[in-house]
Amino acid sequence: MGEKKFAIIGCQHNHIEIFIEQMYQLGYSCAGIFEEHDRTLAAVIAEKYEIPLVENKLSLLGETIEIVGCASMNHEKIDVIELCEQYGKSIMVDKPAVVNQDGLARLEVIIERNRIKVGMLLTERFHPAIYTLKQYINQGKLGELVHIGMRKPHKLNASSRPAWFFNKEQCGGILIDLLIHDYDLLRWFTGKEIKSSAGLVGKSVLPEHPTFYNTVNVQVELDDGLLTQLYADWHTPSKSWTWGDGRIFVTGTKGFAELRLSGDPLLGSSTPIMLYASEEEEWSKVDLIQPHATITADFLSFIKGEASLLTHEELIKASRAVLDADAAVLYKLIPSSKESEPHV
Amino acid sequence: MGEKKFAIIGCQHNHIEIFIEQMYQLGYSCAGIFEEHDRTLAAVIAEKYEIPLVENKLSLLGETIEIVGCASMNHEKIDVIELCEQYGKSIMVDKPAVVNQDGLARLEVIIERNRIKVGMLLTERFHPAIYTLKQYINQGKLGELVHIGMRKPHKLNASSRPAWFFNKEQCGGILIDLLIHDYDLLRWFTGKEIKSSAGLVGKSVLPEHPTFYNTVNVQVELDDGLLTQLYADWHTPSKSWTWGDGRIFVTGTKGFAELRLSGDPLLGSSTPIMLYASEEEEWSKVDLIQPHATITADFLSFIKGEASLLTHEELIKASRAVLDADAAVLYKLIPSSKESEPHV
Repeated sequence: MGEKKFAIIGCQHNHIEIFIEQMYQLGYSCAGIFEEHDRTLAAVIAEKYEIPLVENKLSLLGETIEIVGCASMNHEKIDVIELCEQYGKSIMVDKPAVVNQDGLARLEVIIERNRIKVGMLLTERFHPAIYTLKQYINQGKLGELVHIGMRKPHKLNASSRPAWFFNKEQCGGILIDLLIHDYDLLRWFTGKEIKSSAGLVGKSVLPEHPTFYNTVNVQVELDDGLLTQLYADWHTPSKSWTWGDGRIFVTGTKGFAELRLSGDPLLGSSTPIMLYASEEEEWSKVDLIQPHATITADFLSFIKGEASLLTHEELIKASRAVLDADAAVLYKLIPSSKESEPHV
Repeated sequence: MGEKKFAIIGCQHNHIEIFIEQMYQLGYSCAGIFEEHDRTLAAVIAEKYEIPLVENKLSLLGETIEIVGCASMNHEKIDVIELCEQYGKSIMVDKPAVVNQDGLARLEVIIERNRIKVGMLLTERFHPAIYTLKQYINQGKLGELVHIGMRKPHKLNASSRPAWFFNKEQCGGILIDLLIHDYDLLRWFTGKEIKSSAGLVGKSVLPEHPTFYNTVNVQVELDDGLLTQLYADWHTPSKSWTWGDGRIFVTGTKGFAELRLSGDPLLGSSTPIMLYASEEEEWSKVDLIQPHATITADFLSFIKGEASLLTHEELIKASRAVLDADAAVLYKLIPSSKESEPHV
């Protein structure tokens, strides 16, 4: 055939559609979707994209397959990565790639051997408002950065979530699952490494899911002493226009920027917005700069050894940062008079 | 004459105009302004309101004076409070009332004796958007609160600031000076007491003012374990429409609110805005509820023994909270490889 093919092994989150659609844009076709557990989502996606659902994952690791996409349950992604390494297939996983130190150690072995390339859907670097902010920072339009604050509220839609989502061991929990983007962005925006994190993962809802925590609140110190604030929750009201009114506030000595990642319907837009003011420019929306490529195209460049925005270093450092943070913060029932360990 | 009179002892910050104007609205006239140190601002305000500048502060403590207003240098306000107690005059001070534990102890003695009433310009409780949010919380429109985040950026306008502003010992510094509002609001919104604070006060600018720090970043834990995030800086760009684009984000189990305290010029308004979404209501601006009285009228009610929003308890607890927080956080030069103590 000569047609470029990819496959999906693990289909538990519709984030995988990002990868599928971007691979299609790049001229690839999908050989099949394999899902070991609940196939509800896999069936929906298979039908939507007219992709075969296959019974045997090994059938998706043959010679014609160039690359694998994976949105398995978070704790099983590392198994799929190892499987792909056995068959010499580079793999793009949804975030987070790993949910515990054991998974990270296994991932580091694979990265070290470098037989395959592993990508992760750190999609926020390719978000037009975030990408634009990064260009502004690079151009010195914010001066020296003095603070970064990020808010990442999300809709829970509990009834539509699979059981594993509510299980800390399988999902990784709110900090690992959501803030992996933020830890990556902190490194990217500042060019500094993460030094330490302190904060709290709080549980005040859904006692029927004892290891599901609904808020996270972290102060993250960077290598130069800069302290930043991260926050995420599963409390976006169902009537909100967006799954999550994400915001990023970056303060520098020469300018200030606010990103409204899902836009602002009161400004007539639910598309991303970057607002900026400086010593020279009044507070206004700025024209967004589109990233040079999709995250999938960027990963293919990385596989080919060409310049890419994301590399193995970003994958490992973001993963390590969230795991270290998750170990450093307190897990607490609220209201509570005592601390509780997550049931991991 | 029978005319109701007040006086100003200490005029180092134009916040005192809030008190002057509200006293005028209440039918009082001002007997005079006394300022011991630099009288630049005192002269401007005296001329603007046609108030005599007096040479002897004791002339403003006679029988005809019902109440004193004070915006002295922050570390000297407690001296004026003690002076007023000697003369049996209740006093409204700009915030912060005290800047160190010694000042707080002296204030507590006066509060305990209760010969006079002491008020403090915790004006944010009377801000229409903040007041409205409090009513929404009271009415259960946010459900149980799961997070509060507050941002308090400010313009520095360094050339217009008096020397004492840049001196930690005299001013109290960014945490005490600015976050006293936030600590008060945390107590007010939640009905909980402050348990602990952790964070950083950072210095990355103005080496010529060695004890001036420009950012503060704190996680504040309330008695029930709720963790909240506070941030303030002196980095609002000069081209911003406002002296400070203050924001308050409150997330509850039933609703979410964002306050844009200086409005949003892109929404056509530089007046305060409260945005709200819930399980029933889409994201929209809500009608603001005006507070029942000005902070000055509220203080006069308190003096008369009538119901008031602010009492001595709020004054002491907000003051103690910021002093405790200031002692708990790290002071750090950024970029820095080591911690530095503020030169206090």
